[in-house]
Amino acid sequence: MNDGPAKPAMREALVAAAFELFLERGFEQTTIDDIVSLAGVGRRSFFRYFPAKEDVVFPDHERSLAEMTEFLESGTGEEDPVKHACDAARLVLRMYAEQPSFSVQRYRLTRKVPGLRAYELSVVWRYEHTLAAYLRGRFADRPDGPLRADVTAAAVVAAHNHALRTWLRSGGESDWVVEVDAAMAFVTGTWNDRPGGESGGSGEPAESGADDVVVLVASRRAPLWRMVQGIESALGDARRL
Amino acid sequence: MNDGPAKPAMREALVAAAFELFLERGFEQTTIDDIVSLAGVGRRSFFRYFPAKEDVVFPDHERSLAEMTEFLESGTGEEDPVKHACDAARLVLRMYAEQPSFSVQRYRLTRKVPGLRAYELSVVWRYEHTLAAYLRGRFADRPDGPLRADVTAAAVVAAHNHALRTWLRSGGESDWVVEVDAAMAFVTGTWNDRPGGESGGSGEPAESGADDVVVLVASRRAPLWRMVQGIESALGDARRL
Repeated sequence: MNDGPAKPAMREALVAAAFELFLERGFEQTTIDDIVSLAGVGRRSFFRYFPAKEDVVFPDHERSLAEMTEFLESGTGEEDPVKHACDAARLVLRMYAEQPSFSVQRYRLTRKVPGLRAYELSVVWRYEHTLAAYLRGRFADRPDGPLRADVTAAAVVAAHNHALRTWLRSGGESDWVVEVDAAMAFVTGTWNDRPGGESGGSGEPAESGADDVVVLVASRRAPLWRMVQGIESALGDARRL
Repeated sequence: MNDGPAKPAMREALVAAAFELFLERGFEQTTIDDIVSLAGVGRRSFFRYFPAKEDVVFPDHERSLAEMTEFLESGTGEEDPVKHACDAARLVLRMYAEQPSFSVQRYRLTRKVPGLRAYELSVVWRYEHTLAAYLRGRFADRPDGPLRADVTAAAVVAAHNHALRTWLRSGGESDWVVEVDAAMAFVTGTWNDRPGGESGGSGEPAESGADDVVVLVASRRAPLWRMVQGIESALGDARRL
């Protein structure tokens, strides 16, 4: 076995062997020695790819997190921040969808093994943290920026996870694009305003006429004419989009 | 040491001893034997109160989760579901705020110890799951009910955690009620509609005049007069409160 192009194959062989054993004997009952023995590689090869047994279950999250970060940073600062965060979350679901049977097997395994569930929660937290950091930057001008960023990031992650779970529970049979579209439309429909209250658009057309809403938040004590002024100003923004 | 009224004192002594050692030597370097020795109790006493070393760091979450569940179930089904979920989350922050110095110490410790961070994430997940289960019930009639419930529960938890972190970072010095009010007002301001789109109030008085807002969500294509009608109707509800 050479060290060059064989590397990805060895990594995949380790993942395949690990899953075969996890499903057969259980996660706790499987040792790293069992995995390397079935994969036909040395123990050191395992640690070249994975820091620990948990990591072999989630082999693609580091890459996916790096991809998400790169995507978020690729924004020009003109894009709608909530939509950009939703698009970043789509990348993660696509990663799962690229390997349906692996993702479905892992889902079943993760639900059974508390240690893996804890590991998964820590991965989800890192995605949420990455999205929140981006949104904090974009909402820097708002008085409620940090709060808004945290809540929106959590909403994006929850919507993503909802779509992912629906798809996984279908055994990977349902259309993941339909699931993620519905989930993200809920989030963008909730917060579809512009960062910092600035007017003017990114030049992107509104995605869906049906979900295109105007949101007015005003003190109940404000006179009606001031509220109408607020709506007119919001509609003005809309027309400029 | 008798077994009756001394129990809570023994439990508290164990928590105090554990924290003293965790902060002095680190979490990993402290054994349960060290803790019971400093607390002056037997090893079996520790396990009477805590399943594992992690649990001594979060001694009140089981009680708090039970309290949250009970509070959520106490709803009549007429209350605004998002507001009820927010009020349930307030109970958790109140639990932290009852013991400021303990909560602040724990926060500093948890940030340093990955194992505790993972444990905390699993606790947060249980709160979120509990809120989502309640909201799924309340949103059962909506076509997007399960998605809406998951996203809203995540938003409530994120807002709560934002308020909690702000308070903890102030060393427990800031006014936690002000923090949590602002955080929950953001969530209720985002989703303040009635389940199934029904109108009408819950009969509860508005909590705070200063934060009392009216939120209008309408299609951008709706004529202005229809939006004004919407505001008038919202103000009418407000006047009935």
